[in-house]
Amino acid sequence: MKDHHVPAVAAEPAATIFDKILAGQIPCHRVYEDDHVLAFLDVGPLSPGHTLVIPKERKAFLHELSDEAGAAIGRALPRIARAVIEATGATDYNVLQNNGAAAHQAVFHVHFHVIPRRGAQGLEIGWAPRSIDHADAADLAGRLRALLGQSD
Amino acid sequence: MKDHHVPAVAAEPAATIFDKILAGQIPCHRVYEDDHVLAFLDVGPLSPGHTLVIPKERKAFLHELSDEAGAAIGRALPRIARAVIEATGATDYNVLQNNGAAAHQAVFHVHFHVIPRRGAQGLEIGWAPRSIDHADAADLAGRLRALLGQSD
Repeated sequence: MKDHHVPAVAAEPAATIFDKILAGQIPCHRVYEDDHVLAFLDVGPLSPGHTLVIPKERKAFLHELSDEAGAAIGRALPRIARAVIEATGATDYNVLQNNGAAAHQAVFHVHFHVIPRRGAQGLEIGWAPRSIDHADAADLAGRLRALLGQSD
Repeated sequence: MKDHHVPAVAAEPAATIFDKILAGQIPCHRVYEDDHVLAFLDVGPLSPGHTLVIPKERKAFLHELSDEAGAAIGRALPRIARAVIEATGATDYNVLQNNGAAAHQAVFHVHFHVIPRRGAQGLEIGWAPRSIDHADAADLAGRLRALLGQSD
């Protein structure tokens, strides 16, 4: 375990800058808000229109989110993406959500980045796929189905 | 417009390999399924446990998804992430969803990658933020709010 690692499940996660934004204590360029979701422009954008979409539920990691908060985010994302491409003229974009410092998370409140691709501006992705071992994969998929209460 | 660009909104998007997986015509390492969502292991994983989460709704891009399909994906993602970290032992992971060839999309049916970080294995991210221009951002946020039917 790395020293800087935030525990994966914290009963009361530490307050972050997003709590202050949600409370209106510091300003944001608000884009969208409903009962469960707030979206605003990232102040360090990778490209124009780079938007953050966060649940009002205070959870550090995606796997901690309630069904209700997850569904609300999922409903909002396509709507927000539609608006971002229409307002910016970008046609291509990435949606990224990071969990844990080793996965590039910096603010420990769940957030989805919507990042337009604009020429060289946007998210840089490195992709080094491996060959799947089908026997290992079949075993892993079976364990995942069991954890998810799925039939075989 | 790039020659290879798939139109952002197609009334009847082209069939992809995911349609054949959804129809059971080609096998997958299934992880999760409900009325709206299917999840299975990526056959070219960036790390063990790399999972794809797709809507049954056939849409190429996130901004085309219905509210219902978006909400169902959003509800499933935290559940699937919980199972992936429990089954793999990974604590850190990225969720990535790409739209358009310039944004690294290869299969033109909406899919969310859940990618565990495991030492050097996982998603490689390059991050080159710019300074925000607050006047431009205020204007853009206002246009986004209008597109999203939000009050000022």
